[in-house]
Amino acid sequence: MPPETRPTIADVARVAGVSKGLVSFALNGRPGVSADTRQRIMDVAAELGWTPSLSARSLSVGRAFACGLVIGRSPDVIAADPFFPSFIAGLEDEFSVTGQALVLAVATPGRQEADTYRALAADRRVDGVILTDIRVADPRIALLGELRIPAVTLGRPDVASPFASVSTDDGAGVRLAALHLAALGHRRVAHVAGPSGMLHAQRRTQSFLDAADAAALDVTIVETDFSAADGARATASLLDEPTPPTAIVYSNDSMAVAGMGVAHQRGLRVPGDLSITGFDDTEIGRWVHPALTSVATDARGWGVTAARTLLAAIAGDPPAHIDLPDPTLAVRGSTAPPAGA
Amino acid sequence: MPPETRPTIADVARVAGVSKGLVSFALNGRPGVSADTRQRIMDVAAELGWTPSLSARSLSVGRAFACGLVIGRSPDVIAADPFFPSFIAGLEDEFSVTGQALVLAVATPGRQEADTYRALAADRRVDGVILTDIRVADPRIALLGELRIPAVTLGRPDVASPFASVSTDDGAGVRLAALHLAALGHRRVAHVAGPSGMLHAQRRTQSFLDAADAAALDVTIVETDFSAADGARATASLLDEPTPPTAIVYSNDSMAVAGMGVAHQRGLRVPGDLSITGFDDTEIGRWVHPALTSVATDARGWGVTAARTLLAAIAGDPPAHIDLPDPTLAVRGSTAPPAGA
Repeated sequence: MPPETRPTIADVARVAGVSKGLVSFALNGRPGVSADTRQRIMDVAAELGWTPSLSARSLSVGRAFACGLVIGRSPDVIAADPFFPSFIAGLEDEFSVTGQALVLAVATPGRQEADTYRALAADRRVDGVILTDIRVADPRIALLGELRIPAVTLGRPDVASPFASVSTDDGAGVRLAALHLAALGHRRVAHVAGPSGMLHAQRRTQSFLDAADAAALDVTIVETDFSAADGARATASLLDEPTPPTAIVYSNDSMAVAGMGVAHQRGLRVPGDLSITGFDDTEIGRWVHPALTSVATDARGWGVTAARTLLAAIAGDPPAHIDLPDPTLAVRGSTAPPAGA
Repeated sequence: MPPETRPTIADVARVAGVSKGLVSFALNGRPGVSADTRQRIMDVAAELGWTPSLSARSLSVGRAFACGLVIGRSPDVIAADPFFPSFIAGLEDEFSVTGQALVLAVATPGRQEADTYRALAADRRVDGVILTDIRVADPRIALLGELRIPAVTLGRPDVASPFASVSTDDGAGVRLAALHLAALGHRRVAHVAGPSGMLHAQRRTQSFLDAADAAALDVTIVETDFSAADGARATASLLDEPTPPTAIVYSNDSMAVAGMGVAHQRGLRVPGDLSITGFDDTEIGRWVHPALTSVATDARGWGVTAARTLLAAIAGDPPAHIDLPDPTLAVRGSTAPPAGA
């Protein structure tokens, strides 16, 4: 491709009527550019078809212009959970404009995962990484500190961390679900939780217990690996209890849809005999019948903010700690007062 | 990380009892190594925690040791379709062992997509790319030929292509679904198809029409964008017809689950009043009630084979054309004879 066909930062600056330095700041996601100006520069860049020249930029600043995402879940669980595709779409919304590549890997937590981060660092493959599913005493924090790779964590770790974070109060979402069920008159409510080694699963369980305590609910907690199959198994075990719950709060939509299937298979009516809530407010949850009451988070917006925060950290800004708006509860047909209430 | 902590190819060769050259061939995914030997070398490499040193390899052969996947669908559709997470998991199964990075991008077909490929090439970001959702007269074939990037296509394009391909006969899967419904006694059967600009959607529709013709079925085709929302809309329009179909063959599981929701919402029984089949045999389809009869393909195995085929093409092998085994039909509770049959 002849270089003269590519618009340059100078072209973008001329058309946008700003300095080259400001264009560079805006396109590299640096802070200090007003949102309006940034948007105008982005629009002009998109209109001119500007794409960054990697070799030119790498030579001048010694960077890979790539960010890494190493997902530490089993591929089967990833395939059943729409969080990651939505989150990745948000990362791409930002990276595609700023000319960063996204390097994606899937690795089993432990040695394989550590080796993956070590290789990304040794090969200078990425300028920074995004850490999802932060764990109890997460060993990745110390590892990345040692490897000197900038990072952003989704949620704040429970160990001292030198990294930026972008958080949403998912506990608040579970609390909304529990209080919604309590207000409908439910007294026996179960929580089908994610893996207790993940901090966000712990937070959701703790918030559920706090809300249940405040509303004097009778509760059961079942831990799962987040898969639909495990959600189905947890539902069956709950419905087999001598006095089963009249409502179940699930930690994701896939498990909630699977749980609804188990209830229907047993001839139970949802919500007449069993109310069900999900988490993530996915497309599929809106179309099952009854439509799923679900905690709505903005996975894509989370991706956009995580990408921007990481780019700022790579540019040398002090670690920012950004709190996203609290989740809301999308109330639909899968919740109603319990029979006899 | 001190270099002495990293096992080398020589260490792997010594423990596996083979030559360094053979280890190198096996770990780079080159053909000419027997499956048994390859597996043994992989096992030893994994056991020793061998990871490739990118800078050493890049210097010696001038490669990026990365492959690219540019997905040309809307992020919302990707989030609702479990094919991509499963397929990517398969790519990672292979790339994680051979030390390739996966560079992932999402781009709107057209100018943005072409710019993405041009930037990947200009920046020498990847050694090869994987093309999914091959379109009618796909412009990416000529573009990548011009950019001189090795590629592998999922399915064979309808234009002359210099690239390797890995195909599965998805038409055979739709045929199985149509013939299964015909055998149950259905006469009015609809097909909720994917976008007609995608070759695999075209093939599925043509196979459906051929099977329907052979079984003397009365058919309707509705085109969608593959999203659950569009699957729901298509279902509603089919059920609104004066003589609605007694069975619907959907082109993915997300749309089939959404269609089942629409049927249930109208008080129809599945399968009593309406039989439903999906495509992809996803986790969620197994857990809804009734469980979904679905065409089972091996998205993860497809990823593994696509990755291996691309690595062979990058290594300079002539383009291979690999046919995967035909899909099968997983028959479950969502299909039964029509009422009155």
